[in-house]
Amino acid sequence: MSESPVTVLGLGDMGTALARALLRAGHRTTVWNRTAAKARALTTEGARPAATAGAAVAASPLVVVCLLDYDSVRQVLAPFGDALSGKTVVNLTNGTPRQARELAAWAAGHGAQYLDGGIMAVPPMIGTPAAFLLYSGSPAAFADHRAVLDLFGESHHLGEDPGRAPLYDIALLSAMYGMFSGVLHAYALVRSDGVAAADVAPLVGRWLTAMSGAVDGYARQIDSGDHTTGVVSNLAMQSAAFANFTDSARDQGISPELIAPIGHLMARRAADGHGHEGLSGLVELLTGARPETT
Amino acid sequence: MSESPVTVLGLGDMGTALARALLRAGHRTTVWNRTAAKARALTTEGARPAATAGAAVAASPLVVVCLLDYDSVRQVLAPFGDALSGKTVVNLTNGTPRQARELAAWAAGHGAQYLDGGIMAVPPMIGTPAAFLLYSGSPAAFADHRAVLDLFGESHHLGEDPGRAPLYDIALLSAMYGMFSGVLHAYALVRSDGVAAADVAPLVGRWLTAMSGAVDGYARQIDSGDHTTGVVSNLAMQSAAFANFTDSARDQGISPELIAPIGHLMARRAADGHGHEGLSGLVELLTGARPETT
Repeated sequence: MSESPVTVLGLGDMGTALARALLRAGHRTTVWNRTAAKARALTTEGARPAATAGAAVAASPLVVVCLLDYDSVRQVLAPFGDALSGKTVVNLTNGTPRQARELAAWAAGHGAQYLDGGIMAVPPMIGTPAAFLLYSGSPAAFADHRAVLDLFGESHHLGEDPGRAPLYDIALLSAMYGMFSGVLHAYALVRSDGVAAADVAPLVGRWLTAMSGAVDGYARQIDSGDHTTGVVSNLAMQSAAFANFTDSARDQGISPELIAPIGHLMARRAADGHGHEGLSGLVELLTGARPETT
Repeated sequence: MSESPVTVLGLGDMGTALARALLRAGHRTTVWNRTAAKARALTTEGARPAATAGAAVAASPLVVVCLLDYDSVRQVLAPFGDALSGKTVVNLTNGTPRQARELAAWAAGHGAQYLDGGIMAVPPMIGTPAAFLLYSGSPAAFADHRAVLDLFGESHHLGEDPGRAPLYDIALLSAMYGMFSGVLHAYALVRSDGVAAADVAPLVGRWLTAMSGAVDGYARQIDSGDHTTGVVSNLAMQSAAFANFTDSARDQGISPELIAPIGHLMARRAADGHGHEGLSGLVELLTGARPETT
């Protein structure tokens, strides 16, 4: 146990996976969870259960937080603000950039170094090469604790603004939810015709992989503001063909709600005189827009 | 020119790419387009331009059709129904399963063999190993012309129902539009904070690739009707956390419209008592549902 002590607050599936990665590497790992039962399995693996959150905070110079949401983080940490002075808080709780900035300010007010982080992994991936984690906030804290953070997965520091890591985290997860939306629609559609989802799954995977190459091209077009160069299929054509997507869904008795929004945006953008552009131009309709419905 | 004659109707980017693949393989390739100018480049490459659609149909036993939509296909072919007797029509025009079934019936009524096809490629991919095409309809026609069809890309025959290929085509393209919806939202989000889309693009690609592994698991859950086994993150948790996605978008001045629908479905499914299930259960809300808005 020559490695530095680390505390983990929150032992859901993710917090438990983080604690395990620390234990495997020989860190003195103190754990706490609101319902103490969740600490039991970890205790048999060498973790030290703390009776209170305060005792857990006091046990280590590095406090990793992985709770349900920022409200929980504030409730748990609020009584121990002064005890955090000189310590480093690494908050891996899912939240918004604004929440991260507010919590970072609170931590700084109590003399703590603060890193906010987004975990780009599901719990079974923690500690494997497939996991990567995005951090932002104190560069010194990142440098000091990099070796520990690397135990969870590949660590990226995105800058001093503590809101930057959750911004990326939310962006990447949003991209994933978009992909899953499309895939679930696809499965519903083939099922409506008596086709097993598993029969179409390999083709879906292959097609998405082939088309994911467009992701880089869209980024270049968005950054340059030029949505016309290199366009393979323009918006006017895609928008006209989109009726086939909603018509097919309706013919098959499937709600098109998961894919309809991009169709609406294509139609609006084409109607605005941008029919010769590619799909990347749709970001212009999202930015600065006020949602009509949520 | 020992290879069998083939006709291509429609010389948009895709039709042109198909004709080129035929020419490269030495087929006598007759081409026709409503605006004749588009045939010019192909003519210098060896294609034989037909003055009329009728002449093009008459020129070859195999007629490949790649037009804007099924209305165009019907308009072009209608006067030449009887001339199609004994020939094979391979229709690669994007459309719905219903449209394909109707056109197949019309073709059969005129003594033609019919294959409907979906092209899983953009034009530059035609003739490369990255392209695959989905066919359905006459098995005999597929067997007879397989060698020609393989020139476009890897050929899959999905059965006799001519609607099956467009069903898969629409399903796969819908999955793609979902993925693009998520990616465009992600780019809009990071841009709103002054981050270049190109800076986040590699992470988006990496994350989507990592998460695409879930696609097979969802298929198994959907086919079995068991949405609980192997669930890493349940719907109740995901639904609660989804507020972070819409809140982050609003904080950054970004419309959440592209990702909002899956959030609504998660909330509905969790409220219906399925909060312990995984995301795959959302298909139950799409199937047999009547869309409230389109």
